[in-house]
Amino acid sequence: MRIKIINPNTTQAMTDGIYRAALSAASPDTEIVAVSPRCGPVSIESWHDEVFAAAGVVEEVHRGEELEGGFDAYITACYGDPGLNPAREVTDKPVVGIAEASMHLATFVGYKFSVVTILPRWKMVMEEVIGRYGLKERCASVRCTPMEVLEFERDPEKGARELYDMSLRAIREDEAEAICLGCAGMVDFAADLQEKLGVPVFDGVTAAVVVAEALVRLNKKTSKNLYYNYPNIKEYTNCPEIISPK
Amino acid sequence: MRIKIINPNTTQAMTDGIYRAALSAASPDTEIVAVSPRCGPVSIESWHDEVFAAAGVVEEVHRGEELEGGFDAYITACYGDPGLNPAREVTDKPVVGIAEASMHLATFVGYKFSVVTILPRWKMVMEEVIGRYGLKERCASVRCTPMEVLEFERDPEKGARELYDMSLRAIREDEAEAICLGCAGMVDFAADLQEKLGVPVFDGVTAAVVVAEALVRLNKKTSKNLYYNYPNIKEYTNCPEIISPK
Amino acid sequence: MRIKIINPNTTQAMTDGIYRAALSAASPDTEIVAVSPRCGPVSIESWHDEVFAAAGVVEEVHRGEELEGGFDAYITACYGDPGLNPAREVTDKPVVGIAEASMHLATFVGYKFSVVTILPRWKMVMEEVIGRYGLKERCASVRCTPMEVLEFERDPEKGARELYDMSLRAIREDEAEAICLGCAGMVDFAADLQEKLGVPVFDGVTAAVVVAEALVRLNKKTSKNLYYNYPNIKEYTNCPEIISPK
Amino acid sequence: MRIKIINPNTTQAMTDGIYRAALSAASPDTEIVAVSPRCGPVSIESWHDEVFAAAGVVEEVHRGEELEGGFDAYITACYGDPGLNPAREVTDKPVVGIAEASMHLATFVGYKFSVVTILPRWKMVMEEVIGRYGLKERCASVRCTPMEVLEFERDPEKGARELYDMSLRAIREDEAEAICLGCAGMVDFAADLQEKLGVPVFDGVTAAVVVAEALVRLNKKTSKNLYYNYPNIKEYTNCPEIISPK
Amino acid sequence: MRIKIINPNTTQAMTDGIYRAALSAASPDTEIVAVSPRCGPVSIESWHDEVFAAAGVVEEVHRGEELEGGFDAYITACYGDPGLNPAREVTDKPVVGIAEASMHLATFVGYKFSVVTILPRWKMVMEEVIGRYGLKERCASVRCTPMEVLEFERDPEKGARELYDMSLRAIREDEAEAICLGCAGMVDFAADLQEKLGVPVFDGVTAAVVVAEALVRLNKKTSKNLYYNYPNIKEYTNCPEIISPK
Amino acid sequence: MRIKIINPNTTQAMTDGIYRAALSAASPDTEIVAVSPRCGPVSIESWHDEVFAAAGVVEEVHRGEELEGGFDAYITACYGDPGLNPAREVTDKPVVGIAEASMHLATFVGYKFSVVTILPRWKMVMEEVIGRYGLKERCASVRCTPMEVLEFERDPEKGARELYDMSLRAIREDEAEAICLGCAGMVDFAADLQEKLGVPVFDGVTAAVVVAEALVRLNKKTSKNLYYNYPNIKEYTNCPEIISPK
Repeated sequence: MRIKIINPNTTQAMTDGIYRAALSAASPDTEIVAVSPRCGPVSIESWHDEVFAAAGVVEEVHRGEELEGGFDAYITACYGDPGLNPAREVTDKPVVGIAEASMHLATFVGYKFSVVTILPRWKMVMEEVIGRYGLKERCASVRCTPMEVLEFERDPEKGARELYDMSLRAIREDEAEAICLGCAGMVDFAADLQEKLGVPVFDGVTAAVVVAEALVRLNKKTSKNLYYNYPNIKEYTNCPEIISPK
Repeated sequence: MRIKIINPNTTQAMTDGIYRAALSAASPDTEIVAVSPRCGPVSIESWHDEVFAAAGVVEEVHRGEELEGGFDAYITACYGDPGLNPAREVTDKPVVGIAEASMHLATFVGYKFSVVTILPRWKMVMEEVIGRYGLKERCASVRCTPMEVLEFERDPEKGARELYDMSLRAIREDEAEAICLGCAGMVDFAADLQEKLGVPVFDGVTAAVVVAEALVRLNKKTSKNLYYNYPNIKEYTNCPEIISPK
Repeated sequence: MRIKIINPNTTQAMTDGIYRAALSAASPDTEIVAVSPRCGPVSIESWHDEVFAAAGVVEEVHRGEELEGGFDAYITACYGDPGLNPAREVTDKPVVGIAEASMHLATFVGYKFSVVTILPRWKMVMEEVIGRYGLKERCASVRCTPMEVLEFERDPEKGARELYDMSLRAIREDEAEAICLGCAGMVDFAADLQEKLGVPVFDGVTAAVVVAEALVRLNKKTSKNLYYNYPNIKEYTNCPEIISPK
Repeated sequence: MRIKIINPNTTQAMTDGIYRAALSAASPDTEIVAVSPRCGPVSIESWHDEVFAAAGVVEEVHRGEELEGGFDAYITACYGDPGLNPAREVTDKPVVGIAEASMHLATFVGYKFSVVTILPRWKMVMEEVIGRYGLKERCASVRCTPMEVLEFERDPEKGARELYDMSLRAIREDEAEAICLGCAGMVDFAADLQEKLGVPVFDGVTAAVVVAEALVRLNKKTSKNLYYNYPNIKEYTNCPEIISPK
Repeated sequence: MRIKIINPNTTQAMTDGIYRAALSAASPDTEIVAVSPRCGPVSIESWHDEVFAAAGVVEEVHRGEELEGGFDAYITACYGDPGLNPAREVTDKPVVGIAEASMHLATFVGYKFSVVTILPRWKMVMEEVIGRYGLKERCASVRCTPMEVLEFERDPEKGARELYDMSLRAIREDEAEAICLGCAGMVDFAADLQEKLGVPVFDGVTAAVVVAEALVRLNKKTSKNLYYNYPNIKEYTNCPEIISPK
Repeated sequence: MRIKIINPNTTQAMTDGIYRAALSAASPDTEIVAVSPRCGPVSIESWHDEVFAAAGVVEEVHRGEELEGGFDAYITACYGDPGLNPAREVTDKPVVGIAEASMHLATFVGYKFSVVTILPRWKMVMEEVIGRYGLKERCASVRCTPMEVLEFERDPEKGARELYDMSLRAIREDEAEAICLGCAGMVDFAADLQEKLGVPVFDGVTAAVVVAEALVRLNKKTSKNLYYNYPNIKEYTNCPEIISPK
């Protein structure tokens, strides 16, 4: 099985971390390819960052389908799940978002989960995806740290401390029974936090890998019946050839 | 990995079918044990059937934990997911319902799914679980056939025809992009239906197996933080010793 | 008029208290019968307790219908309303839950009510029944005390103090205008609390009695049109004869 | 016990019918007083009719409290429940709306109820009250007949036929298990319809009487804690003295 | 263009302030007429005040249509939008509520808005209109001051201070990005507050004027297709001739 | 006042039509500038088209702010409102979507509106924006024609016929009281349809122009308090200089 993971930002160090995390969760016979789009923001912390990153994600799915021999599944690895719907139109292979995967899985081991994530403005992106996945009633809270995406790499000790503190508040004050870490760059903190907090702590990347593998093993493909059908054929003026619907 | 699947009804032929389906989806190194409770209804088609079946499910989880050396995960294999919440209180291993697993997975490959199921009165049980899982907006419809649970085994040709007809109506009239088969006894119809309908068709048993395996591989256990904590120790008057919270 | 009240737990002292409370609210010509199931938990504080208690409730309705000459109405007297839906399938007489009765009535005298109840883990059971009855927007809050069910009988002074404190917080901080006491064992505290707090305080048992009487006087029976129809006839393996649907 | 029923329209024949219906449901020791406001529409079929009728209802509650020696409860007897909230501010006695009473009671004997009512434009008034009472998920449908309020009195045979036809469609097509008759002028059709349809059929007036009696017997009064507190004292320019908050 | 603004209370000083505010927002060629009903409360702070004020609003729309040569639009200028639905039945010209106008506009410049308003009991009126307009998810909070309507005119310094303090709390604690001032009498505070708070602050009167002008310029009239159709012709017993539907 | 309207697709003929429509609705002293992005799809009919169009919209707002001397407001003129949230982060001037503007305005003249739009797959995009604006309860239906965006220009007679037929079905079968035309390319059909159907018919472009003017006249700017704050400064790898947050 071959899975292509697209880190929607262009920071190679994060792509590398995502690759390692994915490998650690994948079955031995699964091949992981992890890439960043050729253009886009170095991190994703606003709707502005998201819209350009989403375009990059979609282009990478096109590239996977048309130039790289196809994959069995695709993963978009930013916790706002940018480009998820358009990416599903491009391919009939499963496309899995890391927020989506971790939040759905969290509901199997805790009645309520909290998302612990980056800057306060990210909360609204979270509320929109939680709403789209139908998990509003199961989400105890979205707790923001005062940290930017790349700060978690630059200062992992501070990152660990902030994530622990906010998770603890979610558990004690919001009735959270499980924690979802709301950024692909938090993958290295999950195991340690789970041990310290004593509740399940989900990282999105590993969650998306096991969900993607599950869908492939069940032989499920993205439905082309209606909303995820291939985009209508048309010209994309002044755009890279690869993204024009053909 | 060892998974105990509990068919909440007492019809051994269904338990056998569930066992075969589970095996077909499980990883090679996963051991599947499939049982029926020692007492309860031969099929589950009402709240009345459910309440007694749920008690049986919980007793079997107790048995798994206390008498059978423990399992890595448990699955409750009736599409109303009877006993799911109390079973999660009994163990810290993941407990997965087949409705829950298939519905969540369906949202990854279709924006809207429909449940195609047994008798009309089952629709309300479906609406309650769909509401609990937060998937109301993602569910296109619940379509009932006029068939009882055991009829699908007695007359599989009729069963296949009814499931196909209702699925087609869900796809054409309700905008369903994926189908969830709403009974553990429909497991043998899924592959064929998927091919004929051209959209993903989910059977609950196989979906639950891959979700349970995914949770175990991610090292996630049922949170004991609050709502799924072990039941308070107390006496159960005139009840089998095994079920009294200790 | 004859009403059978089923205390879903097996603590006779609670059944006695429920009987006295019911009598106090009933019309002079109403005969009250109060029982506990022959088996089940001594108190109900988790989903685990609920599922076994629910089975006991349903068995007692069967017994009422088939062995005891029938009743004009049934009441299930635990504040999680266990067994309510299956009990309604068994009989065409009204079946009333104490949570359901008190919450609906509370909305007639206060725009928002709060439930003041037992241990924190009971909150989720409350949220599920409140959701089922459609009263989420009318519920100001669910406030838990740190007390177990049977503690209210063992230490009524502490019970009165905790209920008063939590009710006051609901009134002052949550905008509650009426209080629902969330346990059948709190029946003796209601009148005193109402006087001290100056807002309506509902006990479930007396609320259920007047609602049951109201339904009987209006000549309303449980609809057998669809979801509450009698359970389909089938075998219940190794179960007491009384519960098999005939 | 003394209950004042206010028919919000000024058609005396309807007030008389409401009085007879109320008497038939009331306990022997309950005194019923039924009135129409001194001014207002002869029937209520729009928001326009409602707003003037509501003013009349509130004035009649003032009159009851200040000039007529007080009552134990008040009932507003138009199925849009006009004036219910302001009436509750005027008195600390329970005030019960007929829509509110019948809809809440219907949920005890059927999972879903339908309202069968007058002209199509009334549907939106129904949707607003159903929303306010939290019963949207429990309401199967609102079915309108093509008949005006007073037509049911002028041509009862046509009225009976239309109500039967629409109720049957609600039962067969919308999964209704109980019927609520959505106009105080339909009170005489309920018993016959219930017999013919074989499901519980609720008339609002009798439902409100038993609910009002239940609240009085439980010694519950309208909460003055916040939203139903007495209106602030102020001048009402050019208004009848009786309605100025004092 | 001629717009008639109806201040639903009878305090002429407020009507004058509303007139001035409306003029300041209106296009140069728009004629503003501002009136109070001939009878009704001097301020609106409860459902009781609202029901009588609403009748006055509707009467003034009748007067506008039948005696004053018609207007291009009507505005109801109390923040509970009393009489809005019945007023729309009376005319085919747009009728705009000040709460409605300001809340809808606020969503264009802030993801979440808060309403800062009068006494705590007004909060429920706010929640009902917010629900009716569909803006619950976009409303960060309703914050009440301890001040009555007319107090804002009597003590504007205190008014300014309270509005500033509560707005600041909404911004800092509730994530409000825009403020809606929840009373027509707060119109003079808006500009100053907007400057001090650094977020958009909406006054209802000016918002309603620009929305009314926009609808007129787009040649939109109140739909007579169903729910806002003219009221059915009927007698209004003992009522002013002007309000009887003809 | 200067308003920049961005047609998110690259079909100049549509941009020209949008310009003419905007001019017809704008005040005499408003200057309208209408553009298409320099790259992107020739029409927008899927999430795929939307994601690339959204990037183009945001780039044009940057261009307006940084290279074109600023505008008083921006309008995004595709009925999925692509790029609305990120565009609001880029500027403190109001940014108005055409779907958003027309839907909100429609609620002032009809209790329920329907959207009549292009191909069936566009329905889900509509449901997402309707949900985001909070207007789900006010939306009677989304009715799709079998026509592509550009077909309305190629065959306007067919376009007019399809829009009329679908609007009529919305009015008769779905209780729609107002119609919103769900594509910027339908602007020329609105006046004629409104006349023929006898209910208000909203075109998005003209609605957005009057809303944008209203916000500017009220001196409202996009809140920079939280979710619409300027994007964090960062590098956008291999992206046009204009879009990097500075």
